[in-house]
Amino acid sequence: MTEIFAKAKNASYSFMGETTAKKNAILEKIVHFLDEKRDYIVSENKKDLENGVKNGLSDALIDRLKLDDKRIDSMISGVKEIIAQDDPVGSIVSGYRRPNGLNIYKVRVPIGVVGIIYESRPNVTIDAAALCIKSGNVCILRGGKEAINSNLALGNIIKEALLSEKIQENVCIVLNDPDRVLMEKMLKAKQYIDIIVPRGGEGLIKYCTENSLIPLVKHDKGLCHVYIDEFADIKKGIDIAYNAKVQRPGVCNAIETLLVHKNVYRNVLDTLIEKYKSAGVEIVGCDVVSKTYNTKLATEEDWQTEYLALKISIKVVDSVKSAIEHINKYGSGHSEAIVTENYSNAQEFLNKVDAAAVYVNASTRFTDGAEFGLGAEIGISTQKLHCRGPMGAFDLTTTKYLIYGNGQVRN
Amino acid sequence: MTEIFAKAKNASYSFMGETTAKKNAILEKIVHFLDEKRDYIVSENKKDLENGVKNGLSDALIDRLKLDDKRIDSMISGVKEIIAQDDPVGSIVSGYRRPNGLNIYKVRVPIGVVGIIYESRPNVTIDAAALCIKSGNVCILRGGKEAINSNLALGNIIKEALLSEKIQENVCIVLNDPDRVLMEKMLKAKQYIDIIVPRGGEGLIKYCTENSLIPLVKHDKGLCHVYIDEFADIKKGIDIAYNAKVQRPGVCNAIETLLVHKNVYRNVLDTLIEKYKSAGVEIVGCDVVSKTYNTKLATEEDWQTEYLALKISIKVVDSVKSAIEHINKYGSGHSEAIVTENYSNAQEFLNKVDAAAVYVNASTRFTDGAEFGLGAEIGISTQKLHCRGPMGAFDLTTTKYLIYGNGQVRN
Repeated sequence: MTEIFAKAKNASYSFMGETTAKKNAILEKIVHFLDEKRDYIVSENKKDLENGVKNGLSDALIDRLKLDDKRIDSMISGVKEIIAQDDPVGSIVSGYRRPNGLNIYKVRVPIGVVGIIYESRPNVTIDAAALCIKSGNVCILRGGKEAINSNLALGNIIKEALLSEKIQENVCIVLNDPDRVLMEKMLKAKQYIDIIVPRGGEGLIKYCTENSLIPLVKHDKGLCHVYIDEFADIKKGIDIAYNAKVQRPGVCNAIETLLVHKNVYRNVLDTLIEKYKSAGVEIVGCDVVSKTYNTKLATEEDWQTEYLALKISIKVVDSVKSAIEHINKYGSGHSEAIVTENYSNAQEFLNKVDAAAVYVNASTRFTDGAEFGLGAEIGISTQKLHCRGPMGAFDLTTTKYLIYGNGQVRN
Repeated sequence: MTEIFAKAKNASYSFMGETTAKKNAILEKIVHFLDEKRDYIVSENKKDLENGVKNGLSDALIDRLKLDDKRIDSMISGVKEIIAQDDPVGSIVSGYRRPNGLNIYKVRVPIGVVGIIYESRPNVTIDAAALCIKSGNVCILRGGKEAINSNLALGNIIKEALLSEKIQENVCIVLNDPDRVLMEKMLKAKQYIDIIVPRGGEGLIKYCTENSLIPLVKHDKGLCHVYIDEFADIKKGIDIAYNAKVQRPGVCNAIETLLVHKNVYRNVLDTLIEKYKSAGVEIVGCDVVSKTYNTKLATEEDWQTEYLALKISIKVVDSVKSAIEHINKYGSGHSEAIVTENYSNAQEFLNKVDAAAVYVNASTRFTDGAEFGLGAEIGISTQKLHCRGPMGAFDLTTTKYLIYGNGQVRN
């Protein structure tokens, strides 16, 4: 049953040496077949949608599941951007000659076999496969069971692209694993799989953390903040705090908590709270906010909660230092923003906030592979090991030392 | 009881912003106190040596444990090399402006809190602390119980260096944990510790892999090979294969298996096997070797075993391709060498062998932080995540995106 993982490992030994031209040719074929087989994709996707309705999935989930022409266009343009990127493989990180004459080169190489476990929309199948192919990795993709027909259809398109370029199909394996049996085996198959990227809700991340024998790059929750400083441009502050909460509340780079300096909170909140209310945002606040604006009082749990919904907790703080302390205590190390015109406060926030992406005067919503110019992303790493923030093709490589000698032995 | 981990986390928020000048000043003080307090170190070390004798440790282990003037000199010169290195913190990995005017900078920052679990000699305490201080990290060091007095003495020297530079002592914590109670808690303290580096035998690595909730950088076994190609300079081949096995057999970058091309095996082995025998090396071989040289036959288990002793398995292979296949099947991804004068065979070996360090015409024994010019090392990573090969100050950093906006919100 784990034979498939061994096949992936074997495929990786030859695929890791593939040329950039060949890898881009495969990606061009994926673009071609995605475009040519729209009807097939949509009809397979329809099975998932029908099952979803039958199983009582919410409208929001059904919408996430759906593949239509527009979404196929968007997958195609993601793959095109990945084609246009530089190949990270082969670049020299450092190189030097030692006193004994050894020439040491540290170069970027593919990781090998990348396992990706995801619950998200079916487009992840194409994004992840394209990034792995670009970086010379073999991938094993294990998507959610509600998207199984869509994922298998996209897997067939990838397979066709590989075969039409005379590359063996095991370079990208889409698992048909409705019962989590293979997923559980994946997490233990350390002789075949080099890294696992889990991307999904807290339950999935926790399960993988506790059960994996393979190193993980986790794409965990986003508990993000905007802090509006006493020296903020108030209009920018209101626009950014509104955008970061309301524009798309169900995603990880949206904010859950707004911090406002005590000297400007009336200027900010008199307007912003009205705007939030008009957008249907539920508000809980600290003592001051709760009394001034007659909102519910925020509990300790509120500061720790990723709502992923039209709800926000608001706190008045007395300094940039308190804001940083609150963020380092409650934040998940994802995306954090300060709004200020003060140079020193901006620098202090940038340097002391411990997160993957720290912003001055911009919305946290920009933390995203496409927005950062990576074409697509495998996910957004919230851990510090290996890579942090949006994970693209570069982050799917590791390094290798190549050492050129002429007979050196050690004394 | 886990209060100490919380203290480390708190210390890390201020220490991660410390200047290079201050960090080097602390390291200078460590050099100073190591030199000044030689008698104290030697007398505390004596307690461990006496306990070791009482507990029946082997002569080899007693030797590993011992700290004398020469070994103190060597710790001092390691710290001096670390002082002389560039500070990895603050360097810009990449920077660019997006179409919407956001300026995105990816910069190197300290990881935060690094936990190191080791069984090795007490000098690791100084090496690890010095590398963590250089890279702006707080470290929690958990050494073996047989070296506890030596480690605590070295911990006191580090503490004195920190305090004399007015840096809080929690920046380097040496645990007094003879019963593994704190070690077990360490592996679960994911809200306080960012990475764990386990460095030791297979048992320790397995325990950490199965129990840690914190990302690991593993320093696992070294099952290394030398392959002597049909186009090898035979003398180089013999010297390298001899050095890689005999010069120090108990370490991870020594070889366990020698592969020799069928067209040259008599030229190589007629001489080399005699040399090995004179050095007391026990030999097991494949069919051909066993018949020709009357050695024991190697079992499947032999190819999988890290002897860490004067024992070697030897196999005759029929091509560079078979050598690479054998290495990718049995090797632990540590250090691998080919001896050849043939350009294409050298390139094929460099590109297709999947290991941290791949050599042409040099001994595998060079895979080492000091030999690679890193001053010292936390260990040698055999995993692909985060870093690979000797782990120095650079590898104790992660990245952070700093994003400078002027009011951008997402549409």
